[in-house]
Amino acid sequence: METKLEVTEILKRYSADIDKEINRALETVDPETLLQASEHLVKAGGKKLRPSLAVLSAEAVGGQVKSALKTGAAVELIHTFSLIHDDIMDQDEKRRGKPSVHVIWGEPMAILAGDTLFSKAFASVMQSEDDGVTPELILPALHTVVDSCVKICEGQAMDMGFTERMDVSEEEYLIMIYKKTAALIAAATKAGAILGGGSPEQVEALAEYGRLIGLAFQIQDDYLDVASSEEDLGKPVGSDIVEGKMTLLVVHALSQASEEDKKRLHTILKEEGDENVSEAVAILEKYGSIEYAWKVARENVNQAKELLIDTLDDSSSRDALLLIADFVLERSN
Amino acid sequence: METKLEVTEILKRYSADIDKEINRALETVDPETLLQASEHLVKAGGKKLRPSLAVLSAEAVGGQVKSALKTGAAVELIHTFSLIHDDIMDQDEKRRGKPSVHVIWGEPMAILAGDTLFSKAFASVMQSEDDGVTPELILPALHTVVDSCVKICEGQAMDMGFTERMDVSEEEYLIMIYKKTAALIAAATKAGAILGGGSPEQVEALAEYGRLIGLAFQIQDDYLDVASSEEDLGKPVGSDIVEGKMTLLVVHALSQASEEDKKRLHTILKEEGDENVSEAVAILEKYGSIEYAWKVARENVNQAKELLIDTLDDSSSRDALLLIADFVLERSN
Repeated sequence: METKLEVTEILKRYSADIDKEINRALETVDPETLLQASEHLVKAGGKKLRPSLAVLSAEAVGGQVKSALKTGAAVELIHTFSLIHDDIMDQDEKRRGKPSVHVIWGEPMAILAGDTLFSKAFASVMQSEDDGVTPELILPALHTVVDSCVKICEGQAMDMGFTERMDVSEEEYLIMIYKKTAALIAAATKAGAILGGGSPEQVEALAEYGRLIGLAFQIQDDYLDVASSEEDLGKPVGSDIVEGKMTLLVVHALSQASEEDKKRLHTILKEEGDENVSEAVAILEKYGSIEYAWKVARENVNQAKELLIDTLDDSSSRDALLLIADFVLERSN
Repeated sequence: METKLEVTEILKRYSADIDKEINRALETVDPETLLQASEHLVKAGGKKLRPSLAVLSAEAVGGQVKSALKTGAAVELIHTFSLIHDDIMDQDEKRRGKPSVHVIWGEPMAILAGDTLFSKAFASVMQSEDDGVTPELILPALHTVVDSCVKICEGQAMDMGFTERMDVSEEEYLIMIYKKTAALIAAATKAGAILGGGSPEQVEALAEYGRLIGLAFQIQDDYLDVASSEEDLGKPVGSDIVEGKMTLLVVHALSQASEEDKKRLHTILKEEGDENVSEAVAILEKYGSIEYAWKVARENVNQAKELLIDTLDDSSSRDALLLIADFVLERSN
């Protein structure tokens, strides 16, 4: 719990500057409807974890906060763009406690709002020139961010393909969540390190730190869906099972279970409704899949922390990055 | 007709190199379904006008073809991305004589395919470094391309807003088609001129040339919808009227017509079906709106040509750009 409070304090430290950059990036969007649809989710909150990671990574290699602010904002815009398009694809009607963009403005405007945030994100990275960053640093940072966008699309496409399959290997699953979730977090830390003037070794370490905590973040999400409470989650326990989603828990159980249990889990994932969720959870428990997921998430976080301790000099930014790694596991939602 | 043949020859000259860059940009896309959905429209043809404009602009300021090839490919990818998303928004089921992407792969995969092309476009511009272009030129070229993407979204949002209004001014209409259509063409010529090492004056002239022929291109589309034949158009004459679209012809007629004719035109645009198309065309004719649109398109093309003649030295690339300007008006579809 203490970690959570400390991390909240850290994230607060940069949030005003980050919000300013996000607002600056969007302020000229026109017409008004497109602006409103584009701003809706950005203004609905969110922890601003990704931009803070970019800024902390720049600081942790000895750079200035300023150098990574516009790129941090860009990463948040890309995250928001992907949420808007995902909500259309998955027909999710709520996001951050508010109606999704397509629910309010319709699908065509929601597609456009996503595309607008996407465009503005790249513009924001390039505007780092106004903060004194040289083209030689902006270009590789932008490359990192653009590559992560391709991966987000690929990861989402993989995830869509998984729902029709019951033979997803753990390796495939990890590639999918790397692309869908961890790549953007890794882009934030890597681009931050580049813009802060980090050495190639530091840049690589921060990229890897981002990848590892990104994986842990998604696996923890999978874990909490079964191990947390409806109160903490803000949605019923076992939603992933009801939606038939591939999670590390399910992938593990399907690889370990008896033919009979495998078939039963398969059937429950395919069926509509939530009647048999507790039976599915019992199968996951029987094969140690819940504990397994927690363990994998923990290992990723430990590896991420060791890497930073080995590569970066001690600093308050490094401490903050270490705390954020722990925070990934201490969330209850 | 001769212009058309000559322009076809010009476009052919670069098409193999452009196709190679487009393929290179997309070759690593994974999984296979996402690759297929992303490539579908690219492979369905298209004149590759925009990438050729980028390359010709680079040459016309004394630069090398190679410097603008990857950015030309990027502009084509952005054009294709916008077609895929537009077809979802407008529920258009055919494009380039083939089923639209969302018809074959469903809306979620079509949204993703568009997002993928969008990401790959920016990656392609940045890879110009492999062709020996410096970051100092890549960054402003990329800026130009990114800005045009924001405008495409804004133009599409404006266009969507217009369908509910009957008081669209000519000025508003021209801003809309500038953003929706001309901005990307202007980005192709401007980025090409930047990458070719053009002077600020040459870059500005080519940007303006692109804007003017882009406007003419869209206005000519509006004009042909009423003035061409079903055989040439590949769709019934007056489709824009049936769909209730704002065109320069309609905007002009609504600003000139008697109250009675205005109301009647308004009613026909709002109604379903095509029974009264010829009556609407008669109103457009009565107020000289068809001729007016043709005249505006012609003026834009003349201005574009004069600008190039005044600013650029005589060269085969300049000649090609002058021919392409005329070609915009000599199309029959």
